Amino acid sequence: MPTLILDKKSVKALLSMSTTIGAVEQAFRDWTDGKGTMPAKSYLSLEKGDFRAMPAALPGAAGVKWVNVHPQNPKLGLPTVMAIIIYSDPETGYPLAIMDGTDVTAFRTGATAALASKYLARPDSHTLGLVGAGRQSYTQITAHAELFKLGTIKAYDLNPAAVEKVIKAFPQLKIVRSSLEDAVSSDIVCTVTPARGPVVKKAMVRPGTHINAIGADAEGKEELEPSVLKGAVVVVDDLRQAAASGEINVPVAQGLYSPGEVYSTLGEVVSGKKPGRKDPNAITIFDSTGVAIEDVAIAKLVYEQAKNETHMTVDLVG
Amino acid sequence: MPTLILDKKSVKALLSMSTTIGAVEQAFRDWTDGKGTMPAKSYLSLEKGDFRAMPAALPGAAGVKWVNVHPQNPKLGLPTVMAIIIYSDPETGYPLAIMDGTDVTAFRTGATAALASKYLARPDSHTLGLVGAGRQSYTQITAHAELFKLGTIKAYDLNPAAVEKVIKAFPQLKIVRSSLEDAVSSDIVCTVTPARGPVVKKAMVRPGTHINAIGADAEGKEELEPSVLKGAVVVVDDLRQAAASGEINVPVAQGLYSPGEVYSTLGEVVSGKKPGRKDPNAITIFDSTGVAIEDVAIAKLVYEQAKNETHMTVDLVG
Repeated sequence: MPTLILDKKSVKALLSMSTTIGAVEQAFRDWTDGKGTMPAKSYLSLEKGDFRAMPAALPGAAGVKWVNVHPQNPKLGLPTVMAIIIYSDPETGYPLAIMDGTDVTAFRTGATAALASKYLARPDSHTLGLVGAGRQSYTQITAHAELFKLGTIKAYDLNPAAVEKVIKAFPQLKIVRSSLEDAVSSDIVCTVTPARGPVVKKAMVRPGTHINAIGADAEGKEELEPSVLKGAVVVVDDLRQAAASGEINVPVAQGLYSPGEVYSTLGEVVSGKKPGRKDPNAITIFDSTGVAIEDVAIAKLVYEQAKNETHMTVDLVG
Repeated sequence: MPTLILDKKSVKALLSMSTTIGAVEQAFRDWTDGKGTMPAKSYLSLEKGDFRAMPAALPGAAGVKWVNVHPQNPKLGLPTVMAIIIYSDPETGYPLAIMDGTDVTAFRTGATAALASKYLARPDSHTLGLVGAGRQSYTQITAHAELFKLGTIKAYDLNPAAVEKVIKAFPQLKIVRSSLEDAVSSDIVCTVTPARGPVVKKAMVRPGTHINAIGADAEGKEELEPSVLKGAVVVVDDLRQAAASGEINVPVAQGLYSPGEVYSTLGEVVSGKKPGRKDPNAITIFDSTGVAIEDVAIAKLVYEQAKNETHMTVDLVG
């Protein structure tokens, strides 16, 4: 029995944002309904970077993502983050496919944020603000454009060239370079920076705003002033991960915020166990750390299409 | 930059037991000297079986093994256990190779047991007893034949056909089918059964015997009568894993044995921090659960040879 080998190009060609959002939505619902399994990530911390092993299973799907973060890689002409997914048959353990997981990671992160916006942002939201215009901002745009009728997208970055690049990448959308304050005054704000201290200040955030806090994914990383969290409706993908390495990790460590103040998980909102936005004037925040069920859901989507096409196969395990 | 794809056949052709034993010995030394990193295994337990993600790093090497155990697979014509190793550059995180890990697992298990015998068995040991003649027994034979001048190998199995198969597989060695008692009366005894209750009884074990207890690798599995452990010099690969899922797990759970009674880790013995066998009449036991540093050490060995040969490559992560 052969194992499919799906390289970066093949995976990219198979990914579509609309099906990705649907698959992520179903994954959060299944997980919350007890139909998914996700043990804690396993961290391997080394001198130059770290690796994470992220296993998970959903109905009819199982797998592990092996992903690294090596901050000095760009100097060597390599991406900071690379990922591989082993996609396995949960019934037999057979490795059905080995695929690049780098674009899967980017797609599922954008899809999950847009999903959070679907339940937490005001339904009439039409301006999107980007705080940070690097790699991660692209799928935020694609995913939100899928679910919202976007008027203006206001993009802020310390590096103006990054904004110009985003503008060129989406000629069909109205993206403008803006100040930090302008970007944050949007209906939906996505923070996608590597910041280790508050970028978004309380005074900048208008009532009724929904913020997807994406950047903080490790201890010590933080994008929002802790006072933004206080009084806001905070939704997390996974409470344990968020408290350890998500947007709330620094304020929790400083005693400025308690995990008990979190309103709910995204899965609870998606599955209807908790209502999403109730008050048009509330500030809502989705604290995204990234969970392995998202990756396995997308890997399944990619595999189910790829198996009917012609791709490289190998008798990997005999 | 391409990633090497090494299928089962390629890996098998690259494995040699003598270099495997050397690599495993160095890995245990490095790990004990603080030059290795190994977070806990991550278990994904599903209805039909389970998966384990086993990450580790050693000097110049990093990786993860993704291995399943699906007991009903043989009915479907599939192996119970299949494994894949992603072998990565610790400096950049780049995936250097994806390889079958099934034979790596078998080789490193045999190699580690023979390594334990090297330090714990009497140096003049010349009889090897096998309790269980299934898949796992083959690399026990190969590895011990590498390090010891073996006279007779006494093989016991509930299924006589399994013993006949082993005898045929090693025409150059003197292997005989024996009773359980005869097999256990050897200088070195390897227990490689899926037993969930004592097979080897105290009364069978002679003074001076070394036992490699290989079979118990999950909660509830047990091959030796707890009284065999009492008074014996017990060495483990990893104390936490052994207490949770190794040979000592059942007696520990029953309060018949305490992890504090364990003499040392294999790494401490290999690196000279603790002496190996001191008394020719002592009964020594190596409780093997299998650790990821063994897999990464062998993956490195396989990769270092393969990269100079012609193998399939793919631009997996672009």
